[in-house]
Parts: sequence; structure tokens; C-alpha cells
Amino acid sequence: MKRIAVLTSGGDAPGMNAAIRAVVRKGIYHGLDVFGVERGYEGVINGDFRPMSLHSVAGIIGYGGTMLKTARSEAFKTNGGFSKAMRNLADHRIDTLIVIGGDGSMAGAQKLAQAGVQTMVLPATIDNDMCGTEYTIGFDTALNTVLEAVNKIRDTAASHERVAIVEVMGRSSGHIALMAGLACGAEAIMLPEKPTDIGELCQRLHQSHARGKLYSIIMVAEGAGNGFDIAAQISGKTMYKPHVTVLGYIQRGGAPSAMDNIMGSRMGAMAVDAILADQTNRLVGTSKGELVCVDYDTAFASKRGIDLSLYDLSLTLSI
Amino acid sequence: MKRIAVLTSGGDAPGMNAAIRAVVRKGIYHGLDVFGVERGYEGVINGDFRPMSLHSVAGIIGYGGTMLKTARSEAFKTNGGFSKAMRNLADHRIDTLIVIGGDGSMAGAQKLAQAGVQTMVLPATIDNDMCGTEYTIGFDTALNTVLEAVNKIRDTAASHERVAIVEVMGRSSGHIALMAGLACGAEAIMLPEKPTDIGELCQRLHQSHARGKLYSIIMVAEGAGNGFDIAAQISGKTMYKPHVTVLGYIQRGGAPSAMDNIMGSRMGAMAVDAILADQTNRLVGTSKGELVCVDYDTAFASKRGIDLSLYDLSLTLSI
Amino acid sequence: MKRIAVLTSGGDAPGMNAAIRAVVRKGIYHGLDVFGVERGYEGVINGDFRPMSLHSVAGIIGYGGTMLKTARSEAFKTNGGFSKAMRNLADHRIDTLIVIGGDGSMAGAQKLAQAGVQTMVLPATIDNDMCGTEYTIGFDTALNTVLEAVNKIRDTAASHERVAIVEVMGRSSGHIALMAGLACGAEAIMLPEKPTDIGELCQRLHQSHARGKLYSIIMVAEGAGNGFDIAAQISGKTMYKPHVTVLGYIQRGGAPSAMDNIMGSRMGAMAVDAILADQTNRLVGTSKGELVCVDYDTAFASKRGIDLSLYDLSLTLSI
Amino acid sequence: MKRIAVLTSGGDAPGMNAAIRAVVRKGIYHGLDVFGVERGYEGVINGDFRPMSLHSVAGIIGYGGTMLKTARSEAFKTNGGFSKAMRNLADHRIDTLIVIGGDGSMAGAQKLAQAGVQTMVLPATIDNDMCGTEYTIGFDTALNTVLEAVNKIRDTAASHERVAIVEVMGRSSGHIALMAGLACGAEAIMLPEKPTDIGELCQRLHQSHARGKLYSIIMVAEGAGNGFDIAAQISGKTMYKPHVTVLGYIQRGGAPSAMDNIMGSRMGAMAVDAILADQTNRLVGTSKGELVCVDYDTAFASKRGIDLSLYDLSLTLSI
Repeated sequence: MKRIAVLTSGGDAPGMNAAIRAVVRKGIYHGLDVFGVERGYEGVINGDFRPMSLHSVAGIIGYGGTMLKTARSEAFKTNGGFSKAMRNLADHRIDTLIVIGGDGSMAGAQKLAQAGVQTMVLPATIDNDMCGTEYTIGFDTALNTVLEAVNKIRDTAASHERVAIVEVMGRSSGHIALMAGLACGAEAIMLPEKPTDIGELCQRLHQSHARGKLYSIIMVAEGAGNGFDIAAQISGKTMYKPHVTVLGYIQRGGAPSAMDNIMGSRMGAMAVDAILADQTNRLVGTSKGELVCVDYDTAFASKRGIDLSLYDLSLTLSI
Repeated sequence: MKRIAVLTSGGDAPGMNAAIRAVVRKGIYHGLDVFGVERGYEGVINGDFRPMSLHSVAGIIGYGGTMLKTARSEAFKTNGGFSKAMRNLADHRIDTLIVIGGDGSMAGAQKLAQAGVQTMVLPATIDNDMCGTEYTIGFDTALNTVLEAVNKIRDTAASHERVAIVEVMGRSSGHIALMAGLACGAEAIMLPEKPTDIGELCQRLHQSHARGKLYSIIMVAEGAGNGFDIAAQISGKTMYKPHVTVLGYIQRGGAPSAMDNIMGSRMGAMAVDAILADQTNRLVGTSKGELVCVDYDTAFASKRGIDLSLYDLSLTLSI
Repeated sequence: MKRIAVLTSGGDAPGMNAAIRAVVRKGIYHGLDVFGVERGYEGVINGDFRPMSLHSVAGIIGYGGTMLKTARSEAFKTNGGFSKAMRNLADHRIDTLIVIGGDGSMAGAQKLAQAGVQTMVLPATIDNDMCGTEYTIGFDTALNTVLEAVNKIRDTAASHERVAIVEVMGRSSGHIALMAGLACGAEAIMLPEKPTDIGELCQRLHQSHARGKLYSIIMVAEGAGNGFDIAAQISGKTMYKPHVTVLGYIQRGGAPSAMDNIMGSRMGAMAVDAILADQTNRLVGTSKGELVCVDYDTAFASKRGIDLSLYDLSLTLSI
Repeated sequence: MKRIAVLTSGGDAPGMNAAIRAVVRKGIYHGLDVFGVERGYEGVINGDFRPMSLHSVAGIIGYGGTMLKTARSEAFKTNGGFSKAMRNLADHRIDTLIVIGGDGSMAGAQKLAQAGVQTMVLPATIDNDMCGTEYTIGFDTALNTVLEAVNKIRDTAASHERVAIVEVMGRSSGHIALMAGLACGAEAIMLPEKPTDIGELCQRLHQSHARGKLYSIIMVAEGAGNGFDIAAQISGKTMYKPHVTVLGYIQRGGAPSAMDNIMGSRMGAMAVDAILADQTNRLVGTSKGELVCVDYDTAFASKRGIDLSLYDLSLTLSI
């Protein structure tokens, strides 16, 4: 009988629990022994394996975070740590390790694969900035969390006729800022991929307020600047005194959205199917809206950027 | 200069406002005169046209329902009503009418097109049961509304170790029940497309509870049976006394999800682009995750059913 | 060292977990041994006692339902069951049993007290219909759940200009219907305590719609009639075709509101303080906004009805 | 016939709309002419009066912010501005002005009263730091908004076993931090009213984590320190690297909670009753859970501080 293990690694993302549940339940359904590893690669090194049962994942689909906990492991990048991880996987006779996480986690899985351990990767990070897939588990929930927050901020911005700045996650990638900005009708979106001229932004504010707009929302990816700095710059150039909200870690948690639970469930199941078909060492991803499996080299070779036509659309629709 | 009008028709769906806003703002951006028609085809017949400005759609993206109101028009199906509608569109010199709604609304748009009025259709219904498109505006919000409701019901089902029946919308189509059932980890899903043997369902409940499951959620599309009747049948055959919740009209309202606002915005913009390119009499839809325009005949020829492999998956993952 | 036990009984209510946590943490803080009993009085009879630690209640404050599970026990009302419960409490050397629940649960606690077992009661039921207290844990969360549901229903009622009926919990008490109806601005509220003349209700609908009201919400406590029956009656007498939503069990679950967690925490702590002061056999309740302890006879002698002046207010404010 | 006017002033607060609606509807019900003034005292100076109808407040009860908009008026504090305000009130023959806001707004109302204009004040500010009342409209919604945010943050804090700092509003008052901290089970609460020794806080973290606690939430009122600074201090003294979220303006918006809509409705109605009874120049407030009217001098003489026994309770319950 095959023995598989599953872990979550890197930043947590809503829908990870659905993916764990799918791996465990479908694995057991097909007669596999399934183990959970706590705290990502750290737990592989420390030997934190525990057998999973049908019941062990009961009810978790409704909750954010990850029941297996997660971590970023520096030790795993060392020779000593990696060797210990290999040894523990061998000691527990794990045939395949399923890793749920982002690019860094996939790099770890690939390294294990190169060392002879079969792996599978499920894409999960709220930032949606992962190689080899259009969609990552957690992105949709994060967008909805930002949207709900902006809906609240809009109440007060409209009541005071002010400019509100909302800083969202995204150090190197503007996926959240762009898509949440489009969804909430933000008047401006500042992305790491596309530098914003503050002078032009101020002019745009002037023009739209002159045309009758009563308040504005500026969505800023953290990688495009600090919300408070941007507020200061706008205050210096205009009569607007923007107020700032830094959404921070509320974007990572919360009950998963329908889409993230569906994607987590489907991707988890597909990983088990791949294992049963001996098609391992692959990322489960999406392409043109369909689930696909791609090998790690192919995955790493394709990084999807943001869709700048949607940026233009957001400008057109918020005039 | 072109003059276009936009209306919402049939059941309201979250995201309709985003679509209206996109039509209005992008239309004006490109120099079109844009009119809103109130109460769907009923308003065309009654001459309820009003000019739309950039400001007229301010803030609406955050709200469910439709700012233009909606209705199901019996009069439009009569010769008299249809003629009056044609006359009003001519009187207001409307070049193209954009209709936001479901299959019935598209049939109306096609009839107008056949009579020489240019039309465009945006798909919007929470049921996702529309010809010619994979996705309809409103579906994602409805799924999330059901999921949030089930998350609450699960609290009490788990505390009392009971069986809970949740009846959701879907007279002829089980899209909501299937996808929400998968998203919430329902133990059983009853669909109009796939008759459920209550005896087998009861046996499944017995087996899973014998294996340690403490409570179960049964998701029922209204077209698959009445929740209270099903509860009575289960009570008659087992020791479980299911309690029943009929989610009803909360599924149609609520602040739109990120996806529905994004889809509404993109589809509304695409409709205006099609008008500018003189590519009218088409449905804006999605195919393989991409936005596409299809003519009405093609659209009506393809009705996407539910994906039964996801039904099987839901059973596997809820053992 | 004192040994105390805590259980939840009757219908679950959001905030029960906060109360359990408070009893456990404050009990341990003061050096008590604290046990949890599962499934209410049923668990006392079955001997389902388990020692509670500081860690055993970690994180539960954020969740609805009750981590100790709950039940309505028929066995406890029998002599055999009661004797067995007494014996188990003695065997586990429980000094005081803390019961979290409604009137029925308090009756059980009083019976135990009369038989010589010290008890304390914390009021918890979403219906707020409990003797001896102004407030019961869970009521505020239920009100907010109803309000959120009506906010969604209002979207679609306004878009279709229809009359919406919302049936809420409350078999013999209209607290939820009255206060939620006031909070959501319902045009009519139907209470078990105050029969509604459907003819007058229809007339009121006519008048207000003639004055320009575009849609109406009718809030019905289940004890005041069946939502579908009322819809049929209104349909028979008017041109309105109300649609109906039965909120059902979503009213019992969900993450607790701030008030319910605060009340649960404070009441749980007060129960432990009473035990430490040897002031047991009392209900912790509220009176004029303050926490108080009252003996069971005093509690049962005072049943607070609904405030009919608020009913009148709701009518005035929804003209 | 009496002519009254209503305005909202200072920071917006959820429930202001319910209060406006109550003033308008109950005023009209009793035959008064009711005017709305836009943008607080600024609008009185600028003459932004508009007649209110039953219909003008339709649907607003479900929304945060204030339909009358709000502002902080520097001009009103000048002799010139004040005179102009007096003149406009006289020109519009306003008998009584109802002011919805905080302490600053009440000071303005008192000044008008001293100059011979009858006024009434309704307490509304999310901070709950107002003289003469136990409760201010908006506080409960803000608490629930913070609680929901912390519930999300807890997911990721628990998954990563980290310390999370949540900075909430409250420059001079810790009401939000204290009550939200109690409601979410925060491990530490930092209040302007009670300086926190960071060294002790760190020791407390050590002890509780040594006892098995896996993550901690630190709730900081903005008046007690900057979240990022506190994180840096904790990082300097311990191995914890707290992450920080600044909830900012999401705390001011959002659909009002049931309590805030009920309080807004009741207080608005009471203000009209006071006007009808010629009992003006008073604050409508709460005392021991009951609605009361107090004159401004009495109100300003009593400022309710935070309840430090609840601070102690929060420490006991989060060990």
C-alpha cells in the first residue's frame, strides 16, 4: 500500500484546509495511508508526522488558515536540514509528499524530486503570483476580504467626501491590488509592475472631483509604495488629505470563499489521482480555466504577470 | 453620435450594478449617449428611459440588486407590447439596447434583433443556467452566500450532532446546489439532474455516522424536492430528525463578490467594445475562462449542464 | 480544592464558548479543578466528564455553537436518569455544576439544587425568552444574523419592488422578530404576543405603497404564523405576491457578536466568583444593564415580555 | 407647525442613518416639517438645508456612514461662522436643530442653545467616549468590525504560531480596544488610560507560550502607542516577531449592527418626543441601560471612563 504525506508551507492561505481534506479523504478512499506533516518542511526535518483519518479533517473546510500549521524553513535550505528531511521521509516510508504552498515551496519539492523523493505541489498563496498556474488557492478569498474592507471604507469616505488610501498585500506582484481595485471600482491602483506618477494621479483626482466625484479610493500594493508616504505626497500637492488603512494580515485569514474551497478540493483530488497514476513530480495548476498537471521545469518557466488591459479598464470605469 | 440603452431583466443578480456601471462609464468615455431603462422590458414598453451620467452610477458597484430595477414582462411577449417597445426604442433613437439577464431576457433581445433593433446581452442570473456561456454574473456571490449560511448551520448541527437539510435555489438546474455543496463539504447533494434514492441516502448517513461522523449537511436544490418533505422521509426511515433551512431570497441579494464585480465590469465593457466595432446581436459570455462574444443562435444551441464528475468528487470527499 | 463542572444544555447559542472559556480559565486561575460535561444533562447521566485545561478552551471564543456539544435530555426528567446523574456527580466529586442554557436547563439545575447539588446557571438562548434576566447569551448574534439576511433580501425586494416575508425563530416569544424588525426597518412585524389582522396589514401595505414606498419587509415570528400561509393570505387579498424566506437554523450559528462574547465572558466569570463566595444555586443575569445573581425562585417568578412600545415605534418609523 | 432640522457632525458612525430616519419619519408622523442639513455645522453656515420626506430616508437604515454627509467645521468656531449659522437657522425658521455627533458636536449645540436656538443632541461616535451617556451610536458596529478582523487574523496567527498586533482606533480612549480585546480573547490590551510595561508584556508572552499557548493577539489603542513601534520593541526583547495590522477606517464604516440601528431609532424618536414636549436643549443618552435625556451641563459634568475591572478580567481569561 502506498503511503503519502501532505504538508502546508510558506504563507497560509484560505482553502489550504479544503486541499488537505481532499488529499486525506480521497487518499484513504483509494486505500492509501495518509500522513500529515506539521509546520511545513520544518516538520519534515523534525519528524512531525501524524497519521490522518477520515475524521481528522472533519469540519476543517469551513476555516481559514491551515490545520497542519505552516512555516518558512531556513533549515531545509541547508545540507544538514535537507538530509534530515530525506531521512525522515525514508524512515516513515513515504512514497509521495504533497506540498501545498507557493513558488518557494515548489522549489523545495523540486529539490526533493531531484533527490529521488516523489512529490506533488498544490498552488496556494493569496498573492496569486506563482509560476505555472493561472490560479492559486487563497486568492479569491483575499480579494473578497479586501472588497469587504473597501465597502466599509467607502461608507466613511463618502460621508466625509474624502480620499481614502488602502494598502494591500503584494510586494512584487500587484494581482491583489489590481483585481480588488477593479472589483471595488477604485479610482486609482498603484502596482509594483507599473510605476505611478503621483503628479498625474493628483491631476486625475482634481479632474474627476471637478466633474462631480465626491470621494476616491486609491488601492496601493505594498510593493508600489507605503500608504502613509503616498498620503503625505498627495497632501503636499493637493487639498486632499487622504486617510490610510493598512489591511495587513486580515487578508490572509477568514473563512474560505466558495471558489477557494472548490479549487482546494479539486486540486487536492487531482494530486491523489496523479499519484495513483504514477504521474508525480508535478504542479497541479489551472490553464484556461481547466485543471492541469505540469512538471516543475515547465511550471518555473512560465510566470504569469498581471493583465495590464484590466488596469486600463479600471481607469476607464472610474472616471 | 450613437445612443445606447441598458436594462436589467428577469431575476436580479449581484454584479448587475457593476455591469450597468461599466456600460455607462465606458459608453460615455467613448462618446456615446447612454440611457438607462427601468424595470426591464416593462420599462421599454412604458417609456421609462433616463439619461445616464458618469455620476449616476457612482458608488453602485458595492451593492447587490440593480439600480435600474428589474421585472419579468408578460406584456413584452404580446404583439401589442412588443410593438410599443419597438416604437419607444425608435422614438428615443436608441441604436443598441444592452440587456442584462438570463435566457428569457436573451430570447427577448433576439426577438428585437430579428425585428431590426440591435441588441447585446450580458449573462446575469444567480443560477448559472444560461445558454452559451460558462459563467453568469451573480453565481459566485450566491455560492458564497450559501456557503456562509451553511457555515452557520454547521455550528449548530455539530453542537447537536444532527442532520441539517439546506434547500437552495435551482428549479431546473443544480449548479448552486452542486458547487455550494462541494464548497461546504456537504455529505449529500440532491440535484434535479440526478434523482436521489432516499433509501440509499439514508444508508450512506448510517454508514458515515457509524464510521464516526457526528453530523451531516444535505444540500437540496429546490428542483430536487422540498426540504421539509425530504426531512420527513429521512425521519421515517432513520433515527435522524433533520432540521430544515430554506435559504430563499437571501441567495439573490448581498454585496457582490469580487468575481461578480470583475465579471460584470469586464462583460459590460466588452459589450460596449462590440457596439463600437459594430459587432452586435451577440451574447457576451465566457468559454474556457476567457470572455467571448457569440451570436444568439450559437448561444441557444449550447446549454452547459452540471459537471457530474464534481458530484462524484463531493461524495468521495464527504465519506 | 473545589471541583466544578460545566455543561451546555438545550439549543446552542453563539457565545456559549466564551462562557465555557471564562468558567474554565477563571476557575483554574483560582485553583479550582474544572471538568467539562458533554451533551448537557445527557452527559451527566452517561458520565461524559473530561478534565479541562487552560489549553482546552484555546481559540474557541471565535466560534459559534458549543465545544461541549448540547442536547435536550428526556432521560434527565425520569427518576432513573436523575438518580444516575446525581450518582455521577458524586462519583466525580463535583462541588458545583454550572449549567449554560435556557429556562428548561435552569429547571434542571434547580431540581439538582433541591436534591443537594450546588448549581449555577448562565442564561443562553438566542430567543431571549428566559425568566429572571433581561439578556440571554446568543440573542445579539441572532439579531445580527437576521439583520444581515434582511439586508440581502432588501436588495432583491427593492430591485423587484416586491413584498418580502422573512420568517424568524420564536415559537412563543417575539423578541427576535421585534428587535430585528426594528433594526432592519421592517414595514410589519408579526408577533405571537400580538395577533396581526391580515386585513389591516394589507391596508397598511396599500397605503404606504400609495405614498411611494416601493417594497416592504414583513418580519414574522414562527409563533405568529407560517410565512408561506401569510404570503398566500396577502396574495389573496392584494396584488402583492410576497416571496418568503425561512431563516431557520442559520439564526443559531455563526461567529458570536462582540456583545455575546463579552456577556459570555463576564457571566462565566461571575459564576465562578459566586462559587468562590459560596453563593450558589443562582442564575447570573442582567438587570438594568448590570450583571446580577438571583436565586432560582426569584428568577422563575419574573418573565420579561416584549416591549410593546418598541412595536409601536417600529410602525411609526416604517410609514 | 414646528420646523425642525437634523444634521450629522464630526466623525461618521454606523447607525447615524437610523437616527436620521427616526427623526424624519417620527417628525413627519407628528406633523412637523423636517429639514436635513448637509455636512454638519458647515452646512448650517452654507445654507445647505433640504426638506425631508418619508421617502427621502427609504432604505438608508441598512447602510453605514451618513446620508447627510458630515464634516468638522472650523468656521463654526469663529464669530463670523457662528453668526451666519444663526442667521440661516432663523431664515429657515428652524425651531429646533437636532445634532447627531460626539462631544465636539454637543459643544456646538450647547453654544447654539445659549444663543437662543433650541437644540437636541444624539450621541454618535464609534469611540464611545462621550460625556453624559453610557452608549454612543456606532460603538457596537465598530466592536463587531474589529472582532471580525481579529477572527481572520487569528487564522493566520494560529497557522504560523505567531504574535499578532492589531492597532485600533482610540486616541484618548480605550473603549474599543478594551471591549474588542475582551470579545476576541486578546492576550494583551494596551490602553491610553493604563500604560503598559513592555517588559512585563514580554514576560507574560513568555510565560503563556511556555504553558502551551501557540499564538497571541495584542490589541493596541492608537493612543497607547504605534503598532509598528510596539512590534519593534517586542522583537528587540523576545524571539517573537509580531506582525502588525492597522485597522484604520474600516472601523468607521459597514452596515450597522442590530444594536446601533435600534439605538439610533430609539434615540431619534426620543429626541422628537422631547421636542414635542418642549423639553429641548438636552442630550439623549443611556444610563443603566435605559434611555434618558440630560441637559448639556449635566452631560458635560459626567465622563464615563473605561471599566478597569474588565481589563483585569481580560487578563485572567487569556492566561
